[in-house]
Amino acid sequence: MLLPAETATPTLTARFSGIRAQTEDLCRPLLPEDTVVQPIVDVSPPKWHLAHTSWFFETFVLQQYQPGYRVFHPKYNFLFNSYYNSIGSRVLRNQRGTLSRPGLDEIYRYRAYVNEHMQEFLATAPEKNLAEAAPVIELGLQHEQQHQELLVTDIKYILSTNPLLPAYLPEKPKTVASAPRNPDMLQVKGGVYEIGYKGQGFCFDNELGVHQVYVDDFRIRNQLVTNGEFLQFMQDSGYQDFRHWLGEGFELATQEQWQAPLYWLKTDDVWQHFTMHGLQEIDLNAPVTHLSFYEANAFANWAGKRLLTEFEWEIACREFVPEVKKGNFLESQNFAPLPADNDETCSHLLGNLWEWTYSSYHPYPGFSKAPGALGEYNGKFMINQMVLRGGSCATPASHIRATYRNFFHPDKRWQFSGIRLAE
Amino acid sequence: MLLPAETATPTLTARFSGIRAQTEDLCRPLLPEDTVVQPIVDVSPPKWHLAHTSWFFETFVLQQYQPGYRVFHPKYNFLFNSYYNSIGSRVLRNQRGTLSRPGLDEIYRYRAYVNEHMQEFLATAPEKNLAEAAPVIELGLQHEQQHQELLVTDIKYILSTNPLLPAYLPEKPKTVASAPRNPDMLQVKGGVYEIGYKGQGFCFDNELGVHQVYVDDFRIRNQLVTNGEFLQFMQDSGYQDFRHWLGEGFELATQEQWQAPLYWLKTDDVWQHFTMHGLQEIDLNAPVTHLSFYEANAFANWAGKRLLTEFEWEIACREFVPEVKKGNFLESQNFAPLPADNDETCSHLLGNLWEWTYSSYHPYPGFSKAPGALGEYNGKFMINQMVLRGGSCATPASHIRATYRNFFHPDKRWQFSGIRLAE
Amino acid sequence: MLLPAETATPTLTARFSGIRAQTEDLCRPLLPEDTVVQPIVDVSPPKWHLAHTSWFFETFVLQQYQPGYRVFHPKYNFLFNSYYNSIGSRVLRNQRGTLSRPGLDEIYRYRAYVNEHMQEFLATAPEKNLAEAAPVIELGLQHEQQHQELLVTDIKYILSTNPLLPAYLPEKPKTVASAPRNPDMLQVKGGVYEIGYKGQGFCFDNELGVHQVYVDDFRIRNQLVTNGEFLQFMQDSGYQDFRHWLGEGFELATQEQWQAPLYWLKTDDVWQHFTMHGLQEIDLNAPVTHLSFYEANAFANWAGKRLLTEFEWEIACREFVPEVKKGNFLESQNFAPLPADNDETCSHLLGNLWEWTYSSYHPYPGFSKAPGALGEYNGKFMINQMVLRGGSCATPASHIRATYRNFFHPDKRWQFSGIRLAE
Amino acid sequence: MLLPAETATPTLTARFSGIRAQTEDLCRPLLPEDTVVQPIVDVSPPKWHLAHTSWFFETFVLQQYQPGYRVFHPKYNFLFNSYYNSIGSRVLRNQRGTLSRPGLDEIYRYRAYVNEHMQEFLATAPEKNLAEAAPVIELGLQHEQQHQELLVTDIKYILSTNPLLPAYLPEKPKTVASAPRNPDMLQVKGGVYEIGYKGQGFCFDNELGVHQVYVDDFRIRNQLVTNGEFLQFMQDSGYQDFRHWLGEGFELATQEQWQAPLYWLKTDDVWQHFTMHGLQEIDLNAPVTHLSFYEANAFANWAGKRLLTEFEWEIACREFVPEVKKGNFLESQNFAPLPADNDETCSHLLGNLWEWTYSSYHPYPGFSKAPGALGEYNGKFMINQMVLRGGSCATPASHIRATYRNFFHPDKRWQFSGIRLAE
Repeated sequence: MLLPAETATPTLTARFSGIRAQTEDLCRPLLPEDTVVQPIVDVSPPKWHLAHTSWFFETFVLQQYQPGYRVFHPKYNFLFNSYYNSIGSRVLRNQRGTLSRPGLDEIYRYRAYVNEHMQEFLATAPEKNLAEAAPVIELGLQHEQQHQELLVTDIKYILSTNPLLPAYLPEKPKTVASAPRNPDMLQVKGGVYEIGYKGQGFCFDNELGVHQVYVDDFRIRNQLVTNGEFLQFMQDSGYQDFRHWLGEGFELATQEQWQAPLYWLKTDDVWQHFTMHGLQEIDLNAPVTHLSFYEANAFANWAGKRLLTEFEWEIACREFVPEVKKGNFLESQNFAPLPADNDETCSHLLGNLWEWTYSSYHPYPGFSKAPGALGEYNGKFMINQMVLRGGSCATPASHIRATYRNFFHPDKRWQFSGIRLAE
Repeated sequence: MLLPAETATPTLTARFSGIRAQTEDLCRPLLPEDTVVQPIVDVSPPKWHLAHTSWFFETFVLQQYQPGYRVFHPKYNFLFNSYYNSIGSRVLRNQRGTLSRPGLDEIYRYRAYVNEHMQEFLATAPEKNLAEAAPVIELGLQHEQQHQELLVTDIKYILSTNPLLPAYLPEKPKTVASAPRNPDMLQVKGGVYEIGYKGQGFCFDNELGVHQVYVDDFRIRNQLVTNGEFLQFMQDSGYQDFRHWLGEGFELATQEQWQAPLYWLKTDDVWQHFTMHGLQEIDLNAPVTHLSFYEANAFANWAGKRLLTEFEWEIACREFVPEVKKGNFLESQNFAPLPADNDETCSHLLGNLWEWTYSSYHPYPGFSKAPGALGEYNGKFMINQMVLRGGSCATPASHIRATYRNFFHPDKRWQFSGIRLAE
Repeated sequence: MLLPAETATPTLTARFSGIRAQTEDLCRPLLPEDTVVQPIVDVSPPKWHLAHTSWFFETFVLQQYQPGYRVFHPKYNFLFNSYYNSIGSRVLRNQRGTLSRPGLDEIYRYRAYVNEHMQEFLATAPEKNLAEAAPVIELGLQHEQQHQELLVTDIKYILSTNPLLPAYLPEKPKTVASAPRNPDMLQVKGGVYEIGYKGQGFCFDNELGVHQVYVDDFRIRNQLVTNGEFLQFMQDSGYQDFRHWLGEGFELATQEQWQAPLYWLKTDDVWQHFTMHGLQEIDLNAPVTHLSFYEANAFANWAGKRLLTEFEWEIACREFVPEVKKGNFLESQNFAPLPADNDETCSHLLGNLWEWTYSSYHPYPGFSKAPGALGEYNGKFMINQMVLRGGSCATPASHIRATYRNFFHPDKRWQFSGIRLAE
Repeated sequence: MLLPAETATPTLTARFSGIRAQTEDLCRPLLPEDTVVQPIVDVSPPKWHLAHTSWFFETFVLQQYQPGYRVFHPKYNFLFNSYYNSIGSRVLRNQRGTLSRPGLDEIYRYRAYVNEHMQEFLATAPEKNLAEAAPVIELGLQHEQQHQELLVTDIKYILSTNPLLPAYLPEKPKTVASAPRNPDMLQVKGGVYEIGYKGQGFCFDNELGVHQVYVDDFRIRNQLVTNGEFLQFMQDSGYQDFRHWLGEGFELATQEQWQAPLYWLKTDDVWQHFTMHGLQEIDLNAPVTHLSFYEANAFANWAGKRLLTEFEWEIACREFVPEVKKGNFLESQNFAPLPADNDETCSHLLGNLWEWTYSSYHPYPGFSKAPGALGEYNGKFMINQMVLRGGSCATPASHIRATYRNFFHPDKRWQFSGIRLAE
């Protein structure tokens, strides 16, 4: 299911501390009340994220590899199991927001308890245990990073549904006005390419099954679609004209009365949008975000272009992204996408916004599930979802790579998703 | 809509302080997290109750009668209006549990602000303003008492849905085992009786329109149906035998798989029930509670008896209940019904449990709505609901009387409702 | 459950033939295709009515009292049982419109088979069997008359949902324009009255338990509310002003976007309505029909009046309706209400339109269910429904009387229901 | 959108007559009542299919190319438009079963009217009009063949939901017992292949955009999965073991209580299935059918195999299927799949059963929609559906080819779908 992690214990210990602390840092600006609610099924209460990521280590590491470990509370397995049928029954997903207990303080005690036992395990476990557990710990850390991203997107959603429109962070100093950049279509040569992860570091099982694909020549836009461009689509009745849309998308948009991306609000005829810093004016040069696949695809049709496949995207990413990662990731604490970066040939392929592809999330040839409960991690979701690539401003920098496959149903809008055009 | 209150200002001021403080006392054992959630639409978050009762005074007293009053927050009218169309749009009832802000602390600040201005108003307002406002203040206090009862029943529901089954109060000292009492049917003479409120104190508009009704001779049970009796119904397949049930009741019971009253849990073949003191053994001599009208009526049919009409109940209450109220009310802090009281001819007509009647909640002849927003208080609910009489262990003692009409849909189970038989 | 029928066998035989034939006459103008569909759950396919009324005689008469009787088809009990749990499982009500078989011809064969055996039974059964069966046969005939009314209302609904708006009968000769009549409020004296059926003929169990009620003096309108009056309510924003409405009614009206009675269509700014003779202009002097209780009650509030209770209605009916029935019943074949009749002191109390009362459908004191399956006939519906009185233009003349209690949920509109005002 | 049809007018005329007549032949065994109902949204009433296919010719041919053509009825466009937004509003899909009119006879008159005008057009239209219309007529015929298949599957569903389980055709003479055949995995060589339609005949727009794909070596089963094999999966708790299933599939199977393929019924511990000839014993050697993608995929996982991609399937089909089509198609009138054919290397790739692939229905590179309403034909469905290949026993023989792409949502079971394994 995953390759051997970079196993030097000191590093793992350090990374464990760092990543676990980062999760709590993200929750620091919240009231206890904010950590309880679940306004829609897709969104989980922050309290739940804090506990569930600890449950992962307790269940898959400490209970497996640390002899004599006693769980913090016998019912937490029922409360904080997300979807692992192998691990037993659990609170229904849509009921997470009805649970006031354990309270936030108790959950921090749970985290401290698990952290302490994990540190002890990392410090004292026999080499053999450690070697066996290392890949699972690594998976737990990657899993926690995924929940860091979800924490950001879920907190944003929670605050956005509140009529008081509270800001997660106090108003941010106004950045220098961004300048438009010339959009361009970059050529990529067709042929048979290799797809999937081949390196020495960590990857998810869904990136494996390295295989060849044939693609034709294609061209990729050197920057993401901007708010300004999307406004033109809106002003051209883009949301009302069925000809741009997939049938199920148009039906949904009509029924839900979509008129703009999620979080956009029109006040006195001016479009604003809700951000982690509260309601703000829209920057026309910044990339448009919080779109469903349906909207992304409708825009592409309207523009006479198309979305990329996930294979084209991966090929382009390898071609245009230099070794060293730079970009707008979780650690930048922007919690919002930035305008195109003029230093990059193809701006923001990694970071900034997840890019919808016109590829369904299916197994690669040669995909195989891990044995046991961890085999439920990725494989069982391989239907009805579309692949997104590249990470976003809510993705930890160390979590993303060219081969990373994210996936959501085509109607979802609350992630930091954007549009990359091709032709 | 309501009779002039006992208007001596000192009394009103004292009652204002007392009742407002009692609401907060009820919330003291809760975590902030407990005050946010809404597991079903019927239940409101405690935070919401705390704010809504303050909004009532702010909207109907301070904004009307206190010149220059400035509202605490301009959006609270949208957040904490319950159902007054006259007062404008509001958060949908089923969305109350998605709102984390304002946090609990902020709501206590809101309460303090309203209290302070109310006290100032009561101390300094011109006689004329005071006289006009007094009935509305009285209504606000009665309204707050109603929400005290709802706080108790909603808190019980919230805690009950949590897999940890947390107790509202630490385990209560075991009371002395209760003894069964001989049930008896008491005779009441038929004839033309007067129904409705005629006194000098406060009453709701739905008790007015004093009028005559004719009833035949009837007999009323001198005590409520007990857990032990209800267990016999259950053991006699009472929940499975459609012949005892109203059609819509049986359909619901089947669909919801009702096997016992709400809060009953069978563990290792033993029935327990969830109480405000956590999971407890069932006392066979205590009255059965948390039943829908459907279950109450099915039980009565099974027992070869029937429920009372609300008129029979009121006539019996006047006949059997002595002047001085005594009983099991909110202030007793039992938060649970007690076994029959041998000192009373007809035990617990007032307090202990609301008693379902086989009367729909309709207007009395001569009923008229108050003008303006307060006219929405009672009249618009006069359809599809059944009348309950007598108050419960969650009702403030000063809130109940023989003519008081409570009402719920026949499927509701989360109130402290019980069964009084007649024939 | 019912009083001994007028038992002279010849009469019963004649009535059996007549009523059974009348049912088929009603279906004659239909295509086979019309008899299959079920556009809403309330409406049953005509084919189903034809079969179900036969199933009643087969199940409750022939199988009980005719030795050696063989059912027409072993599965028809499953197909055509309406709601008798005692008789076993059955096709779900909302699935009736999915059944193409048995075809209409087959169902007519079923009717002929049952008729033949019933006639044989009536002609040849021993006196004792006949005497026992007579009340059940009478009930079967009354039951068939009820389904005749439902056939009319269901056919109207079925045709109305078809975009072709087909007429049940070819366009009717235009009647002479009706003249308005002076509305008046007639006085009725209060006091203790006797309610319920006491005669020698047939009545339903829900009319029994003759008992006394006290009513105050009241006044009753001498005619039904007209289309013209209801238009004024509409033009005065009656559907938009919550103050006239019960809460649940207003919520429903808003959600369903009710703007007018059922079957009214606005074309080029002119209101028409769909009738059994197709789309027609509205006669302002004819009574308004196809209203829910909510609309009837909102109109009454708007008009500063109220609806009657079922007791007031019965008292008034006894006072104002002469012995001999006359009026607009099923046999008149108008299938629509007529303008007020100037010859009657209080016009159209019987026939024309069912009149919503503000009384819930509850058991009379002393109500008792018949033993066995027929006990499911009326009693189990005594919740959540409102009483309507007086019969309509779709009611067989011999079926109605002053004590007759019809009942529907307060949101139902497809019956021939109207408004009688009181004060 | 489509290639020029084989345009010789005589042939087209003959094909027009033949295909139109074949549609009516399929409806001949039905009662008028059978043609009205719609037990689930996926299924359309046969009456609707008969009319809709005529509407296609009326709307896209006669109204476009035949000057002076008058439509049969002005409302039929509203009634029989399926999903073409360009052509205007229409009856909601889920309301098709509520329409009794126009009756079946009227619809046959509609067909005759359209046929007559089409024949006249084909006989007399100027060459230029004919040349322009020919591809649209061809598309109309292909469209009618698609509805022939749907007629078969929809009739089967309609009859199956009837408790009488009526047969479409009288019981068929028992065929000779089929013998099992040795299953085998056939090798196919990997490499870059060309995918899509390149011939001179008709194809749909979704087959165009011929392009190259790379596939690895793979092996394909020489026959479909049989009922006997699927029974083993069932007996091995295949429906209960989440490990074989995609998450959304398992959730659905659990919720819908799937225990066997659609149409299987267990009576006295024996599995039978409903067929077009009524309820019949299951032939263990015949292929299993009426499965969702979820079940097909779960079976493949259980068997340690996988489904093919649509590209692998097309490559295999070209390799193994000889020029001349033979097989079990609509014209064979079996209306059921046959056991494997020992004469074929790879049995029944074409005909018998549609084969689920693990490929989403997406546009080929270079796909482009036709202008105007016909552009809505295929493109707007390219989301959330899986591709099926090869045609079935309900597919007209002249309608299928190696490149044909059918598509359904992964939960659909009422088509003649089956399982082809690969590894």
